[in-house]
Order: sequence, then structure tokens, then C-alpha cells
Amino acid sequence: MDPQILTRELHVKNDSKIVMLVADGIGGLPIEPGGPTELEAAKTPNLDRLAKKGVLGSMYPIKPGITPGSGPGHLGLFGYDPIKYDIGRGVLEATGVGFHVGPNDVAIRCNFCALDAQGSISDRRAGRIATEESAPLAIKLRQVKIPGVEIFVEPVKEHRFVVVFRSEGLGGDVADTDPQKTGVPPLDPVAEDPASQKTAQIAAEFVKQAQKLLAGQPKANGLTMRGFSVAPHLPSYEDAYGLKAAAIAVYPMYKGLAQLVGMSLVGQPGSLAEEIDVLEKSWHDYDFFFIHFKYTDSRGEDGNFAEKVKMIEQFDAIVPRVEKLKPDVLIATGDHSTPAAMKSHSWHPVPTLLWAPTCRPDRCQAYSESEALYGGLGHFEAVYLMPLALAHANRLAKYGA
Amino acid sequence: MDPQILTRELHVKNDSKIVMLVADGIGGLPIEPGGPTELEAAKTPNLDRLAKKGVLGSMYPIKPGITPGSGPGHLGLFGYDPIKYDIGRGVLEATGVGFHVGPNDVAIRCNFCALDAQGSISDRRAGRIATEESAPLAIKLRQVKIPGVEIFVEPVKEHRFVVVFRSEGLGGDVADTDPQKTGVPPLDPVAEDPASQKTAQIAAEFVKQAQKLLAGQPKANGLTMRGFSVAPHLPSYEDAYGLKAAAIAVYPMYKGLAQLVGMSLVGQPGSLAEEIDVLEKSWHDYDFFFIHFKYTDSRGEDGNFAEKVKMIEQFDAIVPRVEKLKPDVLIATGDHSTPAAMKSHSWHPVPTLLWAPTCRPDRCQAYSESEALYGGLGHFEAVYLMPLALAHANRLAKYGA
Repeated sequence: MDPQILTRELHVKNDSKIVMLVADGIGGLPIEPGGPTELEAAKTPNLDRLAKKGVLGSMYPIKPGITPGSGPGHLGLFGYDPIKYDIGRGVLEATGVGFHVGPNDVAIRCNFCALDAQGSISDRRAGRIATEESAPLAIKLRQVKIPGVEIFVEPVKEHRFVVVFRSEGLGGDVADTDPQKTGVPPLDPVAEDPASQKTAQIAAEFVKQAQKLLAGQPKANGLTMRGFSVAPHLPSYEDAYGLKAAAIAVYPMYKGLAQLVGMSLVGQPGSLAEEIDVLEKSWHDYDFFFIHFKYTDSRGEDGNFAEKVKMIEQFDAIVPRVEKLKPDVLIATGDHSTPAAMKSHSWHPVPTLLWAPTCRPDRCQAYSESEALYGGLGHFEAVYLMPLALAHANRLAKYGA
Repeated sequence: MDPQILTRELHVKNDSKIVMLVADGIGGLPIEPGGPTELEAAKTPNLDRLAKKGVLGSMYPIKPGITPGSGPGHLGLFGYDPIKYDIGRGVLEATGVGFHVGPNDVAIRCNFCALDAQGSISDRRAGRIATEESAPLAIKLRQVKIPGVEIFVEPVKEHRFVVVFRSEGLGGDVADTDPQKTGVPPLDPVAEDPASQKTAQIAAEFVKQAQKLLAGQPKANGLTMRGFSVAPHLPSYEDAYGLKAAAIAVYPMYKGLAQLVGMSLVGQPGSLAEEIDVLEKSWHDYDFFFIHFKYTDSRGEDGNFAEKVKMIEQFDAIVPRVEKLKPDVLIATGDHSTPAAMKSHSWHPVPTLLWAPTCRPDRCQAYSESEALYGGLGHFEAVYLMPLALAHANRLAKYGA
């Protein structure tokens, strides 16, 4: 069930403040039999203190067994059913480089590729071209001009870049042009519904002009397009919850995801400490604060258990500054697990802590995966975290008389 | 939600092996206040060892409070939403006697009954006729001939037998002909949709010829028909999960259920030990192995606590042979509970154990109902067991980027 069906009707306004601290990929695994997880190995006196007086739970980002990407992981945390609301690959790629995809935009993930003399693909990733070489080429493609269409080209990394077409009435259902093999030319962009015919025509014209601009390039003289998509129609935080919400994040991807649900981007923090500076400064301007900390995930992806432990300790260390602001509801969680042992996102539940004067304490004595298994929030799906936050802030009316 | 919506898109192939050991009806109840359940009374050193290093959960076969039959119980275990996918009674009855219901088949549960001189039912169950008397009568009905229709008649037990009509385009929506009382004749078969008109006509002709063949029989001179049904359209294990799956079972019902989801029936084992022989021999030919053990359920149905305990100990004893094969994921579970105290299937959750190198261990120290309550898999619905199995075998890609 989509819990916003209820929250949309039931939310009420008050002066409460809700803070959601998200340590990306915080959940982990032991690296030796019987050993602790990263979170269990970390010294987290502040979160442990909150765990004693608050309530814990073991949170499924999506459903049991399903590993989320960053998009669905955050949608779930924000209370948007990640299966109902699909963020297209092109939109996610654009979001990741800080491009705000608007209502008249179609976003496309593009790859530079190498074409032979017959126009067939000889290397689908342009010889893994370095970003220093590919970024100027992407910027060169900004010279493409198509009447009636605003075109944006943004470098991403290595052979990847993103293109956005802006014009009224563009559909997003165009098939990928990447044939997924070499020795054949890129496919023509083919619309998969009538509303996307115009998009396909624009894409074909873009490719034609782009290939002229790239002619003679040794590695990257062609391109393929994938993941054509329009911005998802997500209800805003104001609509869904009656919350004026702020996003405080360092990385563009998370700022972008927050923006898709109508949060305001606040500040330009470059570190977790600076994020808390921004929180302090904007405290009186918003009801809800999403604060994103990236490096727990990064060190998990690196497979570096010891460094992930340190990042968790950094995360713990800022908690007293947040407490000093006297939030009504304080949440610590993650968008998924990233066990160093797996060097990747995983499906394992995320230990989640909620503190509020109205929470019913459980017997948990520390913030950890194993304690969260026995927490008062039980084992629950991420989409219920926002209803729980609102409830603990007295921001949800009774359902029915 | 039907989790196959996700697994169908996300499954990836690798060389991992998943073994699901199913002890039918394993969950139980104490027979005296404060006493152990059957599983807690049993000595299960092997499963307890796995429980310590693996993860436990308390599994609902369908939903809280709902007691499953064997059909829905196994569908749930196999990851098919047992409410969405309905196996008709006729199909289940045919499956139970080892008849493989194909795409052009309508299967019907039939009862022999006694008719009086006016053709009214005098005994709805033909005087509880013994199987030795009724089976030859069922076989006699194979003499019925209807042009354009292949007809199969299979004895079941006592007054019960099963009839299958095979012909193209037969609908399965025909009302039962059993009037559920005596003193009235059996009802005519009535189609409940246009596609089932032909089926109803065939059924009427079958009854007419059958009554001639049964004329003069003292107990069983008539029949009623119930549960007309066609085979359900179940996605295969290959489609849903990308798994080449083997079913190793002794009893026809479980072989049949496995076959409905596209598992291959392997071997002709007559005992649990022989099932493990088959597992060893077919180890390299499949990705997934469903191994069914019946007698935990049988002794529960008998109300024999002590014998059910022994059956659980037999089940435990084969675990080392399975471990020796080095499966990547090893699951021990049941399709439902069958407490000896109740002599029947029950709604109580099923203690479920999953071991894999990627599982996040919990604090459980033994494989039992009471430990499973506090396991890392929490309280979950059976349809999530397959996604969890796939995830722990690294056979599911990330959902979204």
C-alpha cells in the first residue's frame, strides 16, 4: 500500500521539527564469522544513547531480498513507493550531475563510442576514454542546434554523458539506440508511443549533427543513447505531508532526488560538519530536514571495513549538535546497506533509530543491526518511516472518527 | 505485492546452487502448558548448528491467521502469490494422483454416489465405499467414449476419483453437480461462461454413459462432479527467477505442484535418504533443488507428537549430506505447521532457516519456533522466501540505479 494515500488526507500543521539523518549504506555485515558489523564495531556513544531512550527497527528499503539503487532507496526513505514511482535512468543520470530535470524535459544517458569506416561500432565505450578527454567532447556537442528545442549536454564520467531536450509535449518512450554489441551501427531512435515521435526525431537530428562534430576523433567519433525518460510525477512533500522540507547534501545525486519530491536545497556544504552548519542556520525556515552523509556508502563500496567504521564514528559525532537544536523527531537511518564484505549495495535491512518524546521505548541498548532486530518498530518497509515520523511529531490526525 | 514483478526483471545467472529442504507441516505446538513443540523436543544438532551461523525467521505461509492447504502452501514457498494464483480443486486432485494437467485439459473431482430408483441421491459418498471396491469402478469408466475428446479417469480413494477431459478450447467454469443433499438427483452440469458450454456438454454425456456402466452397482451407481478447473497459468521458475529447478519428492502431489511451476522431476526416490541420493546425482544439472519430506506432516495429522519428533530428527540427520555438496544457499522450512495437538494443518508461522555466506547472522542459537520469532528475517510472508534465496545467491541485480 502507498501510505501517502493516508498521509495526504491526515496531515496537520504544527511547529514541530523533524530531522532525518541518512548515513548512506550504513547497514553492514561481519567480515569474520561471529564478528561485528561495521556499525557494531564503531564507537557510537551518541546514537547508542538515543537508541536507549528512543525506538529501533529493522527497515527493508523496498521488500525482502531486493537491493535498491540510490534512486529507489531514497524514494522509499522519503515515503514514495519505489515500485510505483519509477525514476527513469536518464533522469537519474541527469540528477546525478546536478541537472534539475523539469516538466518539459526528456533526459537521456549517452555513451561515446567508436565507429569504424562503415559506421559500425568498434568499441561501445570509446576505449574507456578518460574523463579529461571526454568532457570537452561533451561540451563541444552543445553546438548542436535544433529549432524549437533547448538542448543541454552535461559531461558525466569516462565515456558517459547526459543530454536533455527541452520542448513542450515531448514523450519519453524512445527505445535505446545502443545495439549492445559491436560490428553493427547504432540503432535509429524509435518512438514506442505516438507522444514520443517528436522526441525520436529530435534525437535522430542530434545524433546526425553530433557525429559531424565528432568526426575524426580517434576514440569517440559516435554516440549511443539509452534510458530516455521524463521526470516522474511525484507529489511534493508539502502535498503528501504538509511539510516544508529542506535537503542538506553534498553530492548532486541526493540533492537532485530531494528536489524531485519538492524539497528545497539549502546551503552549499562541502562536509558533514558544514551540513550541520547549514542545518543550524536554516533551522527556523523549515519543518523537515533531510541530511545526507555519503562516505559510509563510499567506504563500503571500497570494501574498506575499517574506514567505514571511521565514517560511522564521524556520523555519530555530529549527533550532539543536532540534539542541541531540540528537534521533535530525530531519525538516524540509511537508504540501504553497503557491507564492506560485499563492496556493493545489498538487500539487508537497515538499522533505523527514531527518537521523539512520544516514542514508546523498547529494550534496545545500542544502535546496531542486531539490536534493531528486536526494536519496537519491528521489521518494516521504508515507506512507513515518514508516516512514523509525522505521527511522532503529532502531525497526523486520527483516521476516521 | 507479487514479488515476481521484481524478480522477473532483476534475476541474473551465475553458478550458485540453492537447496530448499521442506519438511511438510514442520511447525507445531506444545502438548502441555510450558512444554516444547515437536521441533523443540527433537534433537536437531545439524539444523541448530546452521541456525547459529545462519539467519532465522518466522514465516507466514499466506497471511496471519490463514491455514493453507498443500497447494497454496507450496505455491507460497515457491514464491507465487497463493491468493493471485488459484489452483482449481480438480487440478489439485489430479495433481495429487500424479496426473500432469496440460493446457488443453479440464480436471474434475468426482464422487461416486448411490442413486435410488427415481434417480435421486440416497448416499452422497456411496456408503463410504472402500478403495478396493471403487478403484475398479473408476477404471471401468475409462470405457466412456466421446468423439473429439480424450478422457482420463483416475481412482483416488474411497468414493473419490478424478476425470480429465482433453480437447482444444475447453473452458473450466462449470458449476458443481453435487446438490449437497440427498433425496434429489445430481444437478446437470451448467456452464458459467460461454467458453465452458462445450465442457458442460461433454460432462453431461460422460455422466450419461457412466451411469449405464454403473447400473446395478449396489453402492456406487451414480456420480457427482465438482471443482471443474483448468491448469493455472503459472510463470515458470526459469521465467520468474532464471533458475533451472529440480523437484525431488516421493509423493505425487508435491511432484505435481513443482511441475506446475516448471520444475523438472528428478529421480524416483522412495525415501528421504534416496531423495538425497538423487540430489547428489543431479547436483551439476540444476541451479535450484526443492526437496520434499512428507512424514512430519503425516505424523502431525495423526496427532502423534512423539513420532513427529522422530521424523524431525530424520530430517535433521540428512543435513550433513546436503552441506557436503556445498550449496551457496541452504534453506530449511515447511509449507505450513501441522501441530500434533491439532491433528491438522494450522495457521501458525513456520520456523525458517536460511544459511548463506552473505546472510547477516542474528542471535538465534537453535532451529525452533521460539528462536525463529527473534530471527533476522523477522516475521515474513512465504512469497518473500524466493527473493531472499536469490539475493543471498547473488542472483538479483540492484533495483534502479
